[in-house]
Amino acid sequence: MKPTSHGQLTSSRLDATFAALADPTRRAILARLASGEASVAELAEPFAMSQPAISKHLKVLERAGLISSGVDAQRRPRRLEAAPLAEANAWMEKYRQFWEANFERLDAVLEELKTLEATEPTTRRKKK
Amino acid sequence: MKPTSHGQLTSSRLDATFAALADPTRRAILARLASGEASVAELAEPFAMSQPAISKHLKVLERAGLISSGVDAQRRPRRLEAAPLAEANAWMEKYRQFWEANFERLDAVLEELKTLEATEPTTRRKKK
Repeated sequence: MKPTSHGQLTSSRLDATFAALADPTRRAILARLASGEASVAELAEPFAMSQPAISKHLKVLERAGLISSGVDAQRRPRRLEAAPLAEANAWMEKYRQFWEANFERLDAVLEELKTLEATEPTTRRKKK
Repeated sequence: MKPTSHGQLTSSRLDATFAALADPTRRAILARLASGEASVAELAEPFAMSQPAISKHLKVLERAGLISSGVDAQRRPRRLEAAPLAEANAWMEKYRQFWEANFERLDAVLEELKTLEATEPTTRRKKK
């Protein structure tokens, strides 16, 4: 990673995004907001959590830029902002070749097992 | 998210993966390991960090399943394990439509600006 100010900015944004995503409640809030904006009360409801507890999670998400607040002064509905996810995804894409290589190895092993099963019927019969 | 034990397992793995990725040194270690396995000493070198400090980061990465240790007892080289990244990426993919919609809006704005520039030459000339 180059130590440019741009790189540092991206890096600290990635820190905030990944830290915000490292919590099941916060991920569930994002999943809820993916189906439309919602007020704090609406977000708190399915979690059996107090509104202050939910508000804390919302602050973490807001600081990471993952949600924003609507202009309606009464409800202040929260909305999903996906740009930080695009940036985090771009970081992850650089490693795609590694996990795809793993899957290919797994596929090769499964293929080998299938061939073994087909060519060794006696072994299979013994087990029955 | 369904509260099945499978879902909970995936969820706690995602917690560990995202928390491990929320640090620039740990992301840089993964980037280094992407170009081949390395010992703790080799990993510590570019960071101007003590080996114990690096070891702490390696423990976080290892607990998240993002790296593993080789069998060579002397060097114990660390290796990148990309499977947790595949899982984190799969979670992120569900939000792809949102950030792509954002990019489309941005494209539309840029297109509009270009059209404005082309059709209002007087405004441009004034500025010069």
